[in-house]
Amino acid sequence: KVLRLGMMPADGIGREVLPCAQRVLQNTPGAPKFEFVHLDAGFEHFQKTGSALPEETVKALKNDCHGAMFGSVSSPSHKVDGYSSPIVKLRKELDLYANIRPVVGVRGTKDDEKFVDSVIIRENTECLYIKSETSESGPDGQVARAIRQITEKASTRIGKKAFEVALARQELRRTTQPNYTPTVTICHKSNVLSVTDGLFRTSVRGVYEKDAKDNGGAGRYEGIKLNEQLVDSMVYRLFREPEVFDVVVAPNLYGDIVSDAAAALVGSLGLVPSVNAGDNFFMGEPVHGSAPDIAGQGKANPIASIRSAALMLEYMGYTDPALKIYTAVDAVIREGKYLTPDLGGSATTTECEEAILKKITA
Amino acid sequence: KVLRLGMMPADGIGREVLPCAQRVLQNTPGAPKFEFVHLDAGFEHFQKTGSALPEETVKALKNDCHGAMFGSVSSPSHKVDGYSSPIVKLRKELDLYANIRPVVGVRGTKDDEKFVDSVIIRENTECLYIKSETSESGPDGQVARAIRQITEKASTRIGKKAFEVALARQELRRTTQPNYTPTVTICHKSNVLSVTDGLFRTSVRGVYEKDAKDNGGAGRYEGIKLNEQLVDSMVYRLFREPEVFDVVVAPNLYGDIVSDAAAALVGSLGLVPSVNAGDNFFMGEPVHGSAPDIAGQGKANPIASIRSAALMLEYMGYTDPALKIYTAVDAVIREGKYLTPDLGGSATTTECEEAILKKITA
Ligand SMILES: CC(C)[C@H](C(=O)O)[C@@H](O)C(=O)O
Ligand SMILES: CC(C)[C@H](C(=O)O)[C@@H](O)C(=O)O
Repeated sequence: KVLRLGMMPADGIGREVLPCAQRVLQNTPGAPKFEFVHLDAGFEHFQKTGSALPEETVKALKNDCHGAMFGSVSSPSHKVDGYSSPIVKLRKELDLYANIRPVVGVRGTKDDEKFVDSVIIRENTECLYIKSETSESGPDGQVARAIRQITEKASTRIGKKAFEVALARQELRRTTQPNYTPTVTICHKSNVLSVTDGLFRTSVRGVYEKDAKDNGGAGRYEGIKLNEQLVDSMVYRLFREPEVFDVVVAPNLYGDIVSDAAAALVGSLGLVPSVNAGDNFFMGEPVHGSAPDIAGQGKANPIASIRSAALMLEYMGYTDPALKIYTAVDAVIREGKYLTPDLGGSATTTECEEAILKKITA
Repeated sequence: KVLRLGMMPADGIGREVLPCAQRVLQNTPGAPKFEFVHLDAGFEHFQKTGSALPEETVKALKNDCHGAMFGSVSSPSHKVDGYSSPIVKLRKELDLYANIRPVVGVRGTKDDEKFVDSVIIRENTECLYIKSETSESGPDGQVARAIRQITEKASTRIGKKAFEVALARQELRRTTQPNYTPTVTICHKSNVLSVTDGLFRTSVRGVYEKDAKDNGGAGRYEGIKLNEQLVDSMVYRLFREPEVFDVVVAPNLYGDIVSDAAAALVGSLGLVPSVNAGDNFFMGEPVHGSAPDIAGQGKANPIASIRSAALMLEYMGYTDPALKIYTAVDAVIREGKYLTPDLGGSATTTECEEAILKKITA
């Protein structure tokens, strides 16, 4: 069976790093056979055609692809009429309701100092990202309003995803770290947003409590610890004691911010992968942006994209090839010989990719 | 002339640290003569009386005080009927539209490593803090919505405040750092919130551009550099290259998060002061919370409150006594002999306060 994978490099360095991910997927033993379908998206495409996310791209993904990889998108700094972020739209259109962002240091590097091994489970479809904004002019000038929407439905399913990810982490560590107890921390700001963040918080808790109740205290999530943390303190604590955070579940915007905060702990945004996950569709996406300042120079770090490809594989159920890729990447980081400039090295995108490929196929 | 100062210790360690600030204000040479008016506020007061911010407190502040100091407030973790944050309400009622939060390392300590010297100018009256939230039940459960409001008026005046603070910083450094060029960075997320954050961004820029235009390119703000940064990248960069940020101006919620992020760079939230500033009224407030886990144990760090008192003095126009306090605090931090446990020391709140007082009056 051949799996079709929608490839959307989009803008800037997305075009340099997505081909690396593709080659890794093609060359990792144990990975399924992929057919790569190039699809248009991005701000540059908008400038050429008036559409940042053509209908055909969405259709192809929905009807004709088993998964996808997205590169990175440039954001115009001003409001451009008719433009709206293709990645935000894709997440919604394909109902990829969870943005899963593992941020993990590599032992044996200077990450050891403040070691982070967390995964941020970001709700991906609502919050301020519903983009329901209005503006009107009043006696004192413009008054703009945006609606932040939080639903019980979306909060419940992201909560469930967080607990399931926690269990999967425990499973992965069963032999190496038998005493590991997963912790899920709910990130919110219910001291100010008591209704919306209150609903997020109680919905996530609800999943946990229902599981306990339905199973007479011996539920599926019984072995998981549940915590919460206000988003402002979370950013503070992330920097001071990252080890306290394991699985973090957050509404969309907090998830965006907190995952960038966590990324700062591992040396470079160029290392941090994500997968946009629905129930049956997974789209890998590096967390970094399109980096127009270095685009086209062969300097971009391919690791975030390569790890995103592995993450996609992992969520598709191909754990073994995914682990092969993670291990190869970690080894290249630890050796430090083929690192791109964002990590203080002088390797090119291709040299870094090749070093990883060599480990994978060794 | 005696100035009346409303003192609201509120909850938890607020009650331990605010008296320290009071004694420092009473004993700093050059400070005006204060009369301290104790006023009720806080969650504990709510539990006793049903009101977290009694009418009399607001009235006294409005009609009878020249300034104020606020301690810290406990937040109930669940929604409690009738409770709403007194500090959020105070900022709005007194129209203290700017929350000014300097985050500054101390040279000669380990802060030198990643030295930060920034000030966050947080809009203090709108954004999601207008607390306009609704909830309704639908076929798929609860649907909650909050309104995020950004106005041209509030964004313009916070922009103006940011440029004025930038000029004041330049003035303070005129002899010590004659080449210092202030930079104002606008923090926003207009790639997603193009209308609301778009308005924030263009309003702040508008202040700068109008000043240039009205003065034929030789305006008051001419010597200031203007930058912008998306909030997610800002949190990332703050940790990696804090030196790029000087004056940061942000909508309410981003300001809340970014200032906690910056605080992580200086060793402890227990060091970070703020002043809530209107046009003619200033309320000092430590950035930390009520820390119920250590309240009542004499362990709280009084520095954030003492610095907040100094900041209040500074904004009231008493620069000399303010500088005396800053210098004394820095010296105590640098010496490292009387630090509280949050900084790895073993001094009590009182010992730390006394060490500072001794320097001030030496
Ligand atoms: C590009 C932008 C719309 C996007 C977001 O805010 O989700 C990005 O910051 C991310 O984290 O994927
Ligand atoms: C206590 C809370 C309402 C407050 C805020 O969010 O403004 C606090 O975090 C702060 O930063 O002053």
